[in-house]
Amino acid sequence: MNPVKVGLLGLGTVGGGTLNVLTRNAQEIARRAGRGIQITHAAAKFYDPAGLLGLDQVEVCDDAFAVVDNPEVEIIIELIGGYSPARELVLKAIENGKHVVTANKALIAMHGNEIFEAAQKQGVTVAFEAGVAGGIPIIKAVREGLAANRIEWIAGIINGTGNFILTEMRDKGRDFDDVLKEAQALGYAEADPTFDVEGIDAAHKLTILASIAFGVPLQFDKTYTEGIGKIERQDVAYAEELGYRIKHLGVTRKTGKGIELRVHPTMIPERRLIANVDGVMNAVLVMGDAVGPTLYYGAGAGAEPTASAVVADVVDIVRALTTDPENRVPHLAFQPGELSDHPILPMEEVQTAYYLRMTVDDKPGVVAAIAGILGDAGISIEAIQQKEPAEGETRVPLVMLSHRVEERQMNQAIEAIEALDAVAGEVMRIRVEQLDG
Amino acid sequence: MNPVKVGLLGLGTVGGGTLNVLTRNAQEIARRAGRGIQITHAAAKFYDPAGLLGLDQVEVCDDAFAVVDNPEVEIIIELIGGYSPARELVLKAIENGKHVVTANKALIAMHGNEIFEAAQKQGVTVAFEAGVAGGIPIIKAVREGLAANRIEWIAGIINGTGNFILTEMRDKGRDFDDVLKEAQALGYAEADPTFDVEGIDAAHKLTILASIAFGVPLQFDKTYTEGIGKIERQDVAYAEELGYRIKHLGVTRKTGKGIELRVHPTMIPERRLIANVDGVMNAVLVMGDAVGPTLYYGAGAGAEPTASAVVADVVDIVRALTTDPENRVPHLAFQPGELSDHPILPMEEVQTAYYLRMTVDDKPGVVAAIAGILGDAGISIEAIQQKEPAEGETRVPLVMLSHRVEERQMNQAIEAIEALDAVAGEVMRIRVEQLDG
Repeated sequence: MNPVKVGLLGLGTVGGGTLNVLTRNAQEIARRAGRGIQITHAAAKFYDPAGLLGLDQVEVCDDAFAVVDNPEVEIIIELIGGYSPARELVLKAIENGKHVVTANKALIAMHGNEIFEAAQKQGVTVAFEAGVAGGIPIIKAVREGLAANRIEWIAGIINGTGNFILTEMRDKGRDFDDVLKEAQALGYAEADPTFDVEGIDAAHKLTILASIAFGVPLQFDKTYTEGIGKIERQDVAYAEELGYRIKHLGVTRKTGKGIELRVHPTMIPERRLIANVDGVMNAVLVMGDAVGPTLYYGAGAGAEPTASAVVADVVDIVRALTTDPENRVPHLAFQPGELSDHPILPMEEVQTAYYLRMTVDDKPGVVAAIAGILGDAGISIEAIQQKEPAEGETRVPLVMLSHRVEERQMNQAIEAIEALDAVAGEVMRIRVEQLDG
Repeated sequence: MNPVKVGLLGLGTVGGGTLNVLTRNAQEIARRAGRGIQITHAAAKFYDPAGLLGLDQVEVCDDAFAVVDNPEVEIIIELIGGYSPARELVLKAIENGKHVVTANKALIAMHGNEIFEAAQKQGVTVAFEAGVAGGIPIIKAVREGLAANRIEWIAGIINGTGNFILTEMRDKGRDFDDVLKEAQALGYAEADPTFDVEGIDAAHKLTILASIAFGVPLQFDKTYTEGIGKIERQDVAYAEELGYRIKHLGVTRKTGKGIELRVHPTMIPERRLIANVDGVMNAVLVMGDAVGPTLYYGAGAGAEPTASAVVADVVDIVRALTTDPENRVPHLAFQPGELSDHPILPMEEVQTAYYLRMTVDDKPGVVAAIAGILGDAGISIEAIQQKEPAEGETRVPLVMLSHRVEERQMNQAIEAIEALDAVAGEVMRIRVEQLDG
């Protein structure tokens, strides 16, 4: 049988990795897929041919739409990134009856509903394993491997840059700004690190995970995001003293009132496996009602790890070429007519426990006043610790852990605490998750 | 569309769990699969109806062959276990043109080649996700999620009983026999614990993992197995001092000379994520050439975790009912005609590093004699430590770590060391793996 002809849009890091993996492992992949897979056409404005394998078999042009319109090509791999022209290219490929594989989480999180509807109408597949947690086959695990389960929640370290920064802060007692500069120098963080450290990239991925876990449409605009830029060295140290680690988690949970969808720094018990996922690595912890907790760990970015997921999607599509479209794995795990309108829960209604740190005057009555505010707001305190003042400092850090409470109540309490004369500056707040049920 | 009718063989722990998950999550599963899945017939000699959901929809008989021969049933779930009559039932189901889902790793490891060949001829699928690492979708991950990769090696904690025992020995400084008795009382270990603690159960699973990773036939009889019964409390403590943990690992690795296939106690660095997988939990670490290391963690046994994997297989089969058989995922990951005859490497030719512990006379020249034997055998020593003697004991424990060497050389050196007058009893040997490349 002839090899399947694939058109590749983008010959950057991941595009080059995809070409290299498909070329280097061509035999191994064909032994699995039952058919060769050949990138025959590619589009790139600029690219460096050095290090690219099998480029002599590829017709490279600079017009991505020409590849998408080429009748020889059966599958399009979109690795351009961004919203436009990626959206137009993917929709055009679908219109032309081609299957699409993409690593573009921003595109799927923002325009996935439109794209999947178009794909559904044309009877083609749009695959996006590489969009979430790079090389970890997490989409496949949730959508197929855990198909028997009601998913209860998912918590993931799904941005390697943020995890690298938090790991360095903990391991070496360094400051956020200092590590961020190193991450930029190492190429782990972009010159504009906003997408990574503010949690936007993680929110794109979490949006996708929530949809395939709970069978709801993609709702990126309803995701709560909070970055890691405010975490101080002392928070990392206090967390450690309390037996916790700080991770930048994406958390989605189905509750009776709605689906939680939130990315924020989170304190988790250090004995949880996911608390020990360090450096640029990613991990996703999934709680299913039948299987219990399962965890998936691996490289969340990089040329070949991402290519691994892209090529796995291509192999799946090749295998499904003869399937009736309605028998393929649905894009969002649930059949298109079976998506639910269960609402996304506003962040104010989410319940978690909290770590609070504030700087207070070292005098009688201050702790009582703060504890009084929390008590009045219906918040019970699990632990409270007054730390040593820094040298030459008269005010002292006060650290506390609360029990679970609604975010709205905690917001009100924090506002009242910040209004006290004895409290200097803002109250630092980190949500705490036990991740045990 | 009518629900797919499924016949269930066995209504024990996992059979009951499967019925319960399919009944409780019927709606969720149908929303994913696009079609209802109904257990209509079941066979069990004895069963306890208490706690079984949806039993009123099931026609229960005591003749498994009658279910397998029932023309209404499209899919058979085999949860009887053991070799016979499981083998005959599965082959009969295949002959009758039915798809089969099984959790029976012993059956697949021993008779899988025959079973898959029969299934291939009939154009049906035999699925066995539940056979390896319970609820963790590891078969799907390796066979589909990592399809782009040349798999380099796999190392797994794939027996929960053994991991529970080793975890308790470390956490609480207890002895093997003591913990084994508790595991039996808790129901984690069988009255005859041989299958678990001798590594036979793990070897069944490892045999399957090796086949789907490397595309070789199932070769259980060539698996090296060594149990955990000889591990002493002091080995656990010394490992910890050296920065290691002892885990009962299944390891399979492709080398130019052959495929390593071995289950044995293994010392691994404590900072590896898999070293922190404790209690009855399972985890499998897979190294792919493109993706790098990925790890999959979850419950390796139990009614509902195993049922989770069984039902996921059923959903996959339902989705593939309209596919051309040659386009389905091949049983052993690689197309039937594409299996390789790469040999299994004899254990004597496997290279690892070693931890050695021996009891020696506390007198000059002993260490030199032992180091001399190792040196003559071409074995270099990374560390050597003489421990304090136990109270009232004149002989002392001597602990050493070697660099990587072929097992054959180490066997010869150990024999020579044991022949020394100054060495009492046997040399304890634990293989060491860094799991970093």
